Amino acid sequence: MRDSSTHRLELKQVNQIGIVVRDSEKVMESWTEMFGIGPWTIRDFDITDVEGRPGKVRLCFAELGGVQLELIEPVEGRIFHSQFLDEHGEGLHHLGFHVDDVDAEADNLVKQGAKVLSSMPGRYAYMGTGGPGGVIFEVIRRPE
Amino acid sequence: MRDSSTHRLELKQVNQIGIVVRDSEKVMESWTEMFGIGPWTIRDFDITDVEGRPGKVRLCFAELGGVQLELIEPVEGRIFHSQFLDEHGEGLHHLGFHVDDVDAEADNLVKQGAKVLSSMPGRYAYMGTGGPGGVIFEVIRRPE
Repeated sequence: MRDSSTHRLELKQVNQIGIVVRDSEKVMESWTEMFGIGPWTIRDFDITDVEGRPGKVRLCFAELGGVQLELIEPVEGRIFHSQFLDEHGEGLHHLGFHVDDVDAEADNLVKQGAKVLSSMPGRYAYMGTGGPGGVIFEVIRRPE
Repeated sequence: MRDSSTHRLELKQVNQIGIVVRDSEKVMESWTEMFGIGPWTIRDFDITDVEGRPGKVRLCFAELGGVQLELIEPVEGRIFHSQFLDEHGEGLHHLGFHVDDVDAEADNLVKQGAKVLSSMPGRYAYMGTGGPGGVIFEVIRRPE
């Protein structure tokens, strides 16, 4: 039963598919050659790792039929995505959904038993859905 | 360099996202309640497991903004998806793409270094892309 303080998120479409990789350069090359996926936009980010130390991540984006593919290459530090690499190896990591208010939606999901796995308030939150299925749902601030 | 006997597949959109789960009933219930995903269509299939013995799988489909979500619950036998469960646990399994000729596209990808992981000729083929990235691409016969 739904608690009256929560609401259903009502997802309408998958906005992003996140993939953790070891070598984004090679993946982009291979997927462009084999599948015609691209062009790619590359962005490097300084982030804070799970122990609060500086880390680095490279994100590579391509659009495919209205869905954004995001390659995530952990470059430095013990960041959230390195754990996935260690435990699962390379591969599909999360489904991302645009929302208007990341923090409110994350709170709403937490009240329903989900868990924040990693987040940057106001920007994004990776959610373990607290139930079965093993899929990470990311709520992402809707692009302007 | 591309061999002249091969062509680029030119993927235009993700048609399916496949997710391996242990208990599809619980996942459907949870995702419907939390995210409004559904309605779901459930189909049971008799298949042949990796050792050629009869196996069973339950597939549950929901549409989300033009992409089909497919929950895959291995029910009986050592089928392709049980290996994933054993090695990775529940979670995102493959990206699926509709093609006009499954066998021709699978052959074409094999010539470029990909590997058929599991297939039903004329219907579908799960491809390891033979390169980096760790994502399973499934070519699926385009629905009529």
